[in-house]
Amino acid sequence: MYSRRDLLKNVAAIAAGVSAAAVSRSALAAIPEAVIQTSPNTMGPLQPNNGRDYNPVVTLNGWTLPWRMNQGIKEFHLVAEPVLREIAPGMTAHLWGYNGQSPGPTIEVVEGDRVRIFVTNKLPEHTSVHWHGQRLPNGMDGVSGLTQKAIAPGKTYVYEFVARRPGTFMYHPHADEMVQMAMGMMGFWVTHPKEPHPHIAEVDRDFVFLLNAYDIDPGSYTPKIMTMLDFNLWTWNSRAFPGIDPLVVRTNDKVRIRVGNLTMTNHPIHLHGHEFTVTGTDGGPTPPGSRWPEVTADIAVGQMRQLEFVADEAGDWAFHCHKSHHTMNAMGHDLPNMIGVDHSGLTKKIQTLVPEYMVMGERGMADMTEMAMPLPDNTLPMMTGDGPFGSVEMGGMFSILKVRDNQPANNYQDPGWFEHPAGTVASEWQGGELAHPERNGNSGGQSMPLKHQHQHNIEMKVRKPTSHDGH
Amino acid sequence: MYSRRDLLKNVAAIAAGVSAAAVSRSALAAIPEAVIQTSPNTMGPLQPNNGRDYNPVVTLNGWTLPWRMNQGIKEFHLVAEPVLREIAPGMTAHLWGYNGQSPGPTIEVVEGDRVRIFVTNKLPEHTSVHWHGQRLPNGMDGVSGLTQKAIAPGKTYVYEFVARRPGTFMYHPHADEMVQMAMGMMGFWVTHPKEPHPHIAEVDRDFVFLLNAYDIDPGSYTPKIMTMLDFNLWTWNSRAFPGIDPLVVRTNDKVRIRVGNLTMTNHPIHLHGHEFTVTGTDGGPTPPGSRWPEVTADIAVGQMRQLEFVADEAGDWAFHCHKSHHTMNAMGHDLPNMIGVDHSGLTKKIQTLVPEYMVMGERGMADMTEMAMPLPDNTLPMMTGDGPFGSVEMGGMFSILKVRDNQPANNYQDPGWFEHPAGTVASEWQGGELAHPERNGNSGGQSMPLKHQHQHNIEMKVRKPTSHDGH
Amino acid sequence: MYSRRDLLKNVAAIAAGVSAAAVSRSALAAIPEAVIQTSPNTMGPLQPNNGRDYNPVVTLNGWTLPWRMNQGIKEFHLVAEPVLREIAPGMTAHLWGYNGQSPGPTIEVVEGDRVRIFVTNKLPEHTSVHWHGQRLPNGMDGVSGLTQKAIAPGKTYVYEFVARRPGTFMYHPHADEMVQMAMGMMGFWVTHPKEPHPHIAEVDRDFVFLLNAYDIDPGSYTPKIMTMLDFNLWTWNSRAFPGIDPLVVRTNDKVRIRVGNLTMTNHPIHLHGHEFTVTGTDGGPTPPGSRWPEVTADIAVGQMRQLEFVADEAGDWAFHCHKSHHTMNAMGHDLPNMIGVDHSGLTKKIQTLVPEYMVMGERGMADMTEMAMPLPDNTLPMMTGDGPFGSVEMGGMFSILKVRDNQPANNYQDPGWFEHPAGTVASEWQGGELAHPERNGNSGGQSMPLKHQHQHNIEMKVRKPTSHDGH
Repeated sequence: MYSRRDLLKNVAAIAAGVSAAAVSRSALAAIPEAVIQTSPNTMGPLQPNNGRDYNPVVTLNGWTLPWRMNQGIKEFHLVAEPVLREIAPGMTAHLWGYNGQSPGPTIEVVEGDRVRIFVTNKLPEHTSVHWHGQRLPNGMDGVSGLTQKAIAPGKTYVYEFVARRPGTFMYHPHADEMVQMAMGMMGFWVTHPKEPHPHIAEVDRDFVFLLNAYDIDPGSYTPKIMTMLDFNLWTWNSRAFPGIDPLVVRTNDKVRIRVGNLTMTNHPIHLHGHEFTVTGTDGGPTPPGSRWPEVTADIAVGQMRQLEFVADEAGDWAFHCHKSHHTMNAMGHDLPNMIGVDHSGLTKKIQTLVPEYMVMGERGMADMTEMAMPLPDNTLPMMTGDGPFGSVEMGGMFSILKVRDNQPANNYQDPGWFEHPAGTVASEWQGGELAHPERNGNSGGQSMPLKHQHQHNIEMKVRKPTSHDGH
Repeated sequence: MYSRRDLLKNVAAIAAGVSAAAVSRSALAAIPEAVIQTSPNTMGPLQPNNGRDYNPVVTLNGWTLPWRMNQGIKEFHLVAEPVLREIAPGMTAHLWGYNGQSPGPTIEVVEGDRVRIFVTNKLPEHTSVHWHGQRLPNGMDGVSGLTQKAIAPGKTYVYEFVARRPGTFMYHPHADEMVQMAMGMMGFWVTHPKEPHPHIAEVDRDFVFLLNAYDIDPGSYTPKIMTMLDFNLWTWNSRAFPGIDPLVVRTNDKVRIRVGNLTMTNHPIHLHGHEFTVTGTDGGPTPPGSRWPEVTADIAVGQMRQLEFVADEAGDWAFHCHKSHHTMNAMGHDLPNMIGVDHSGLTKKIQTLVPEYMVMGERGMADMTEMAMPLPDNTLPMMTGDGPFGSVEMGGMFSILKVRDNQPANNYQDPGWFEHPAGTVASEWQGGELAHPERNGNSGGQSMPLKHQHQHNIEMKVRKPTSHDGH
Repeated sequence: MYSRRDLLKNVAAIAAGVSAAAVSRSALAAIPEAVIQTSPNTMGPLQPNNGRDYNPVVTLNGWTLPWRMNQGIKEFHLVAEPVLREIAPGMTAHLWGYNGQSPGPTIEVVEGDRVRIFVTNKLPEHTSVHWHGQRLPNGMDGVSGLTQKAIAPGKTYVYEFVARRPGTFMYHPHADEMVQMAMGMMGFWVTHPKEPHPHIAEVDRDFVFLLNAYDIDPGSYTPKIMTMLDFNLWTWNSRAFPGIDPLVVRTNDKVRIRVGNLTMTNHPIHLHGHEFTVTGTDGGPTPPGSRWPEVTADIAVGQMRQLEFVADEAGDWAFHCHKSHHTMNAMGHDLPNMIGVDHSGLTKKIQTLVPEYMVMGERGMADMTEMAMPLPDNTLPMMTGDGPFGSVEMGGMFSILKVRDNQPANNYQDPGWFEHPAGTVASEWQGGELAHPERNGNSGGQSMPLKHQHQHNIEMKVRKPTSHDGH
């Protein structure tokens, strides 16, 4: 596995590593060799070879699956198998996925492509692959029992269809579905338009990721697959903050983010500092006149939403699920509230017996971040992530949109923390008058008590302001 | 009660049975006799007598309530009462409903109709009926305490108003509301437009059903009415798969499906193989320019959504809630995960003591479907449903859209399983080259290793493909 | 604190009370004095002094924060602090909020205003304020650790930015966020448009409130801050019915209601008797052609929705979250279902030992409302609220839209219960024929048995009606 440090130092090697298994051969094997990914890092876009057929996507903490052409058919090979997935540095989960990781690799094709996917089942039980949202022959729809036999362990099945409409799709099992999705089996599929489409914009950066969730007891490795509601790991592409890479863009880039939800609840994805519109669903592009400006897109289960905006505000902008528990890691959901309870007397007495004893959350939870409590093995801190101004006290479904004036085109390398222009950071009031660059010419403002005019329609004399009442 | 077999054999009898209580009389009784339904089967559309006033709906596993005319007023009689509802073959619940079933019958009228509804309360506690979404006099709104007195047990109340706007509405109690809805008291109301409406399309098939949910302990019969989140029976019109009838249509039919949600959470209703648009809400028809193409419509609680599409893909298409636990029946929500744990040694030892002991889910859950475990009485298997290729391993909010080229117009009879054209079903790879009907002229494809261009803007030499890189 | 009774009697005093701390001074202090609110009542709109710059909003059970002008800059002072909040008469919670209440005061400014907000932290732990949805310099975004240092207890920080776009925003901490929002720290922000905006309508009444939720054990005072799902107090602006004030409007008023959601789940907000459209989000106004008619708007977490309609139906219209448990107060979520179980024998025996013993919910729950059970201290009845026709049996997220022909403009005083025109209230059927004002000329209606035409395409003879089949 390549560490992140290696990755940033040695891109060429990584690039070679990813595609190593798919090297060109003078004669085709009967079935394409399966490309395996061992790293949880964000791989750069997989550029099509023959010029700029399309602008490839970047899968957050993921990658795009290489293919081969076989007599005009794009051939892919997916392997369903148990995988190790690093959720964030310090915690690794035993999941099920495809080709070495969970989620599986993104599949990228072009509208009109004939696609053949070999699916090999290395799981201990049968599986299938459903191509969510695609137009295809009924027998290729992947619903085991209904449209095909389930793929028994050890078997390889073949799916084949034409990618008839451009769009953003998902793939996942439709066999023992609840269990297999709770174990991490899912992936993204992007069909690029063949010709310019009036409702599909050209963008400078095109990110994709899936929302998923796990219930892994602190100190353990395998998700509890019967959990319906009380998940404790809320993840993007099976990563939790601070394990989620930032989304790096250049100022004024047109940005598209494609987000699919395969959890058990809605996730309201919130972007700071910018408004966006939803330009497409897994059903297709939305008509421009139908779009709403949003700062929070509610993405329902089994839905994909394309968020688009111009990144015209430089800075480090939080980007996260707005359900506050979903930006926490495990251990954030079942502790009693000690706020307002002074345990100092009791605590001292207990500490004579148990020296390391402490009361959690007596003043809130923020001090827990600072205490660096001992945690069970393979467990992430509840909220963490070092920022330039201290802990950001977050976990789970949280990342950062980094907008930089000087980020080179097509470059996704983390530029470090934003350098704020002087005087633009909220800071402690030191007393006295505050300087202001754009102070207007008013000769000494006066206070402006405004009156609440209450529920009666009584004539209330509003006191004349003593000075101008500008706004 | 008519069994399903009887029903398909003997339609005329059923039809007579349904309307038996509403036979024509030469003189009107003071109050219409209440029509009672004892079957959970899908009744065909209730055709208006005087020609084709409107295209009636089909209520999934339900029926439309007959009425009588009384001096220009359409009179209905609803009876709130305890009912027996078969959730699926093998399980019957003790619910509260209307006129013999839960949900109650669909009420169908035409815009401008003056409607009078007699509501008789045969429950052990008071009730009321709120006509969700309707424009009506405030005193007919059915909020007990606020707009009327509650209807005491044994009493009959009269509601009367003009169906002022065309649309899709719901009815349910607004008295002890949480309890009475948790017990199954709800129904659908369709007001057909009087004149063609620019935003209300004519369709060939028009289905309606309600989303509801119950918490019935395995082996018991009555819902736990205080459950807020942990429901274990996710149902459509109080039916769980495999008890939900298929939606049968003819290829290229224009299809509308009206879905109302009276549970405690959002349900993302997902259709395979087709895109649809939401053409209306309980607030009215949506302007065509505002509609989004979707494959999954998130339907919030207290909302109705009209899904419309052309069924232009023949086949058996899954149609279900995309929350994976909602396509499971009871016993799917509190078992530990044994994946990856080999219990064979331990299991053998225990089996010397308890011969029938087994470990569930050691390799996933699919084998549980095959094991046919002994279940408590009156309990549905967690996932089930025999398809043409084996178990579909589903339960709960799951059905099948059956699209057939030869389905006769206005005929809703189950056509059996889809017969796939040769070569269109995903199947096991047998080794060797795959035949392909539309193979293009390429003289031997070559592999196409594509490179990941990572986060640096480093110039990476992309290796020239050895052959054409078509797509 | 002013009681509600005092308030209605003595508006001038209240008005003076609210702004008392912000009296005009001839010279400005370095920092504006913090205005504190002690009442949970709805304060009337805070009219701008210099004519009608904008039409101010009314915060349901809340208030707008007065400001002062300082050399062209609008200066506000927020104090984060522990507060007492009356959830409804009979129950007070120990929350965290701003300036004496939770939620904090609404901030109202005008597009283009330069705004300076002093934030003083009187909490026992650090905090920050994030200005949800605003365009602003990255360093003013309020994400502690990422864009600023957290505000330590006892410190005052200064935020300053131009309110660049008109709209409806929220503010809340982005430091120990899960805990601080679970404790009630949040508020609303309205930026009125400077010039008429084609997508922002002028309205007659403009209400704002936030959806929030708490988990406070019956008999206790402080929310459990680790609760993720099982909240037991579902509130609007930290008030539960019957503690939520009605929304009072005049017939044919154009009404806007701005609702923000800072809970952990979607809330489908349902209005009786009217359809509305969503005219704006926290991302901005929605294009008119994109709007859907609705009676239930699903508001996701971290979203704001502006609901607009013409209140053209006089009456008392229920307005509530449609999740039935969210219109109940505590103790509504974990009791067994006794429906259908006759405990009379057992109960009698137990009562010889425990005279006050009773079985709850044997016939449903409605009788519990009538029993006036003894409750723990500081606990609200599960469902309550006296209406003109008895108990409305509601709690939680429930209020009433009161539409009155004679309500004076700008007057929000509760007009009492609606007086229904004669013959417009659902009532008991007394037997015999029902009179009808608009009876048509039909010479004696006949019953109209309509037939169910079932799933076969069998030709069914539809019996001719014996009389006219009008609709």
